[in-house]
Amino acid sequence: MADHDRAFLYQSISARIAGLIDQGVLRPGDRVPSVRRISEQEGVSVSTTLQAYTLLESRGYIEARPQSGFYVRSRQASQPPEPRASARSRQATKVGISALMSKILNAAHDPAVVPLGAACPALELLPGRRMNRILSGLLRRLGNQANGYTFAPGIQELQRQVARRSFDWGGRLAPEDITVTSGATEALHLSLRAVTRPGDVVAVESPAYFGILLQLEALGLKALEIPCHPQDGLRLDILADELRRQPVRACIASPNFSNPLGSCMSDSGKRDLVALLARRSIPLIEDDLYGDLRFDGPRPKAARAFDTQGLVMLCSSFSKVIAPGYRVGWVAAGRFQSRVQTLKLTSTLVTPALLQMAIAEYFESGSYDRHLRRIRAAFKLQTEQTTAAVIEHFPPGTRVGRPTGGFVLWVELPQGIDSLELMDRALAEGISISPGPMFSPRQRYRNYIRLNCGYPWSPRLDRAIRTLGRLAT
Amino acid sequence: MADHDRAFLYQSISARIAGLIDQGVLRPGDRVPSVRRISEQEGVSVSTTLQAYTLLESRGYIEARPQSGFYVRSRQASQPPEPRASARSRQATKVGISALMSKILNAAHDPAVVPLGAACPALELLPGRRMNRILSGLLRRLGNQANGYTFAPGIQELQRQVARRSFDWGGRLAPEDITVTSGATEALHLSLRAVTRPGDVVAVESPAYFGILLQLEALGLKALEIPCHPQDGLRLDILADELRRQPVRACIASPNFSNPLGSCMSDSGKRDLVALLARRSIPLIEDDLYGDLRFDGPRPKAARAFDTQGLVMLCSSFSKVIAPGYRVGWVAAGRFQSRVQTLKLTSTLVTPALLQMAIAEYFESGSYDRHLRRIRAAFKLQTEQTTAAVIEHFPPGTRVGRPTGGFVLWVELPQGIDSLELMDRALAEGISISPGPMFSPRQRYRNYIRLNCGYPWSPRLDRAIRTLGRLAT
Repeated sequence: MADHDRAFLYQSISARIAGLIDQGVLRPGDRVPSVRRISEQEGVSVSTTLQAYTLLESRGYIEARPQSGFYVRSRQASQPPEPRASARSRQATKVGISALMSKILNAAHDPAVVPLGAACPALELLPGRRMNRILSGLLRRLGNQANGYTFAPGIQELQRQVARRSFDWGGRLAPEDITVTSGATEALHLSLRAVTRPGDVVAVESPAYFGILLQLEALGLKALEIPCHPQDGLRLDILADELRRQPVRACIASPNFSNPLGSCMSDSGKRDLVALLARRSIPLIEDDLYGDLRFDGPRPKAARAFDTQGLVMLCSSFSKVIAPGYRVGWVAAGRFQSRVQTLKLTSTLVTPALLQMAIAEYFESGSYDRHLRRIRAAFKLQTEQTTAAVIEHFPPGTRVGRPTGGFVLWVELPQGIDSLELMDRALAEGISISPGPMFSPRQRYRNYIRLNCGYPWSPRLDRAIRTLGRLAT
Repeated sequence: MADHDRAFLYQSISARIAGLIDQGVLRPGDRVPSVRRISEQEGVSVSTTLQAYTLLESRGYIEARPQSGFYVRSRQASQPPEPRASARSRQATKVGISALMSKILNAAHDPAVVPLGAACPALELLPGRRMNRILSGLLRRLGNQANGYTFAPGIQELQRQVARRSFDWGGRLAPEDITVTSGATEALHLSLRAVTRPGDVVAVESPAYFGILLQLEALGLKALEIPCHPQDGLRLDILADELRRQPVRACIASPNFSNPLGSCMSDSGKRDLVALLARRSIPLIEDDLYGDLRFDGPRPKAARAFDTQGLVMLCSSFSKVIAPGYRVGWVAAGRFQSRVQTLKLTSTLVTPALLQMAIAEYFESGSYDRHLRRIRAAFKLQTEQTTAAVIEHFPPGTRVGRPTGGFVLWVELPQGIDSLELMDRALAEGISISPGPMFSPRQRYRNYIRLNCGYPWSPRLDRAIRTLGRLAT
């Protein structure tokens, strides 16, 4: 085994011990096998085992007791266990989920339906009226010119604002590094097109955002599912192993608040991920759509912050935090920039300049940070409220994710419950959810669902969760 | 030869006689060979030859004199001959013009540069302030909701307006036949993706709009250039012949006011084109971007009007007539609709609802027809003014197109003049033009240029044409 793969052993060890704790084999208060014993048993260095234990400690699984070793922590009584990580599958598959997606999306924007399906924030949480004022002002000032377009890869004011904020995620983009797109959807799509051809294998998170899986399907790409840890995201040990087994053309992932897991990779995890891929010159398409939406603490870094090769294509948009309907996103495509810009030109030519200007002006006004604090707190609260309601109303054996950002909740229902059936029965009662199989090219996660927590808590939502609990029992 | 191919012989005959006239072999007042003689010579029926002569007559080449036969008409003294049709090439080629396009587009929106390059109408001719008022009104009425989006293939109000206007081009679309896109660019791109795979051969007009050639390049498709007659468009006789020779996956063309030729196929030509392709189940991607912009007379039909198989994918947008910057277009994709909608969902998700609503409201207000009359007259006048200036200032031997709609002018310079060099020298003098090689995957048309006539005539434009004439001498 090469040295650089040995590095990921700590993840593998930590995942196995977390599994023992989740399954109740190791219980709160139990002593965890000593570092020396594990090191001998696994044939790894003491420092690797220590790395694994540090990770488990940071995730709240174990605690160190001075002079005594590591012990399983008692979990908060109110917290049910987290959903389990997926089993590994060794083969890349064609994707086939478009029919499911249409069903969900069509239900998503019917105001009569309780919006627990699509990952949408409530418009009342976003600065809609403020954006209207900015737009009206632009129309007055620009007159006829509001109707025109520019051919550049984006209007400079917006490129500058995105570059300015790159410091927040540990980067230092120049304005000209940024290509403005029609939402993150186009950013991800152009990135995929820039680095793959039909038939290529792309490594994806499992579970993964269904929009990405649908892109792979439409582009004739094969998805290789890499299991994710509910807190740490991509299992780098498994990814490293797969890279040795088969040619992987690209990796597409959301290190920050993946959808649906809500996992957030540590900085060292991101550094390792970038380095692992760079050794084989494999591009990483980084979906950072939720990066600004950490519940507590400083904004996490983007994996792009650790990129020295121009291989990380960072994609994001303003759809989840400012203006969903404007469809303005961006990509910093590194060494693939000129290819991405040509593809943009031939796919949609340009993104409406007026809407780009409005978003740039919103940033220039300086209110984004205050707004962000407010919605981060709101999404945190709403996610907690949804979690509490699920714990109260769902059948025993239900497991609930513990996202640390974003606004979706991943829920594992007891074995035997079919979330596709549940979706249909819920829709019949006016409630939309996203069933687990949408998040997997192999349509795994039959007994999982994803719940949107983008709306302020209400009796209507509480009733909906209760109804779902009844339907799932 | 199959019966259905025999039908196109009239085109071939008419093209050859037009060529003799253009070259001065047959001169004004000369008698054209009799119908009987041509029929015997070519081994075709009298009715086929008569069809050819009728076409020549409608194009102003010849006139019938009672009891005497057909004679070459005297052309107006001020009209130089039209640019010649391209020679035929029998092989499909990969496309390679993206570098050229970037150069043109970057120059196109520099206000310091005289805008004879990109095909853009002057914003002052479009209802910019009116659109601003509509947008402002929408923002007031919608409040927060102006910020939201819908997942449907388009907002219903706009779908209804497009369907309502389908009577104008001889169709009868239902609102649900229409998928709203990010400009005609996305409409064409999704259509191409829906019916082709990399490596496929696509028949294109020669010369063709460079944006389409760039799409073929980006999608790895091979372009098969089909020569066009400057007035009649696609040479169906040659297309029919090529279809027998090689597998063609799709045909993409602008029967109405092709860019750059400005040619407009007759109704019977459109019917024949649709039937010819339908016999081999080959989709026609119809770019009808300029269809509303005929200089005189009723709006021409779309080829889609003759489609009985769902094989014609009709693409258009509001960018040339209402709001270039909104990037709102549409496609009625026939039997490929669901594939196109899935591709739209995965490429850009949706087109901004607010901008769709604004355009729908503009149509509802009923001012479009009056506006259209105004800009059709303006584009006609501007095209005539540009033509007159070219005749005055360009070197002897220059040939100028006679478009009957749209707002571009195709100009053939004397042999030996290199339009790529001319472009660079013109740019150095602050004038942008589109050089001929951009309109051909094989970079033919070295001594051709396309001039934009979208701006009201001005001394500045006159000076620019004079400068171009000097540079081309």
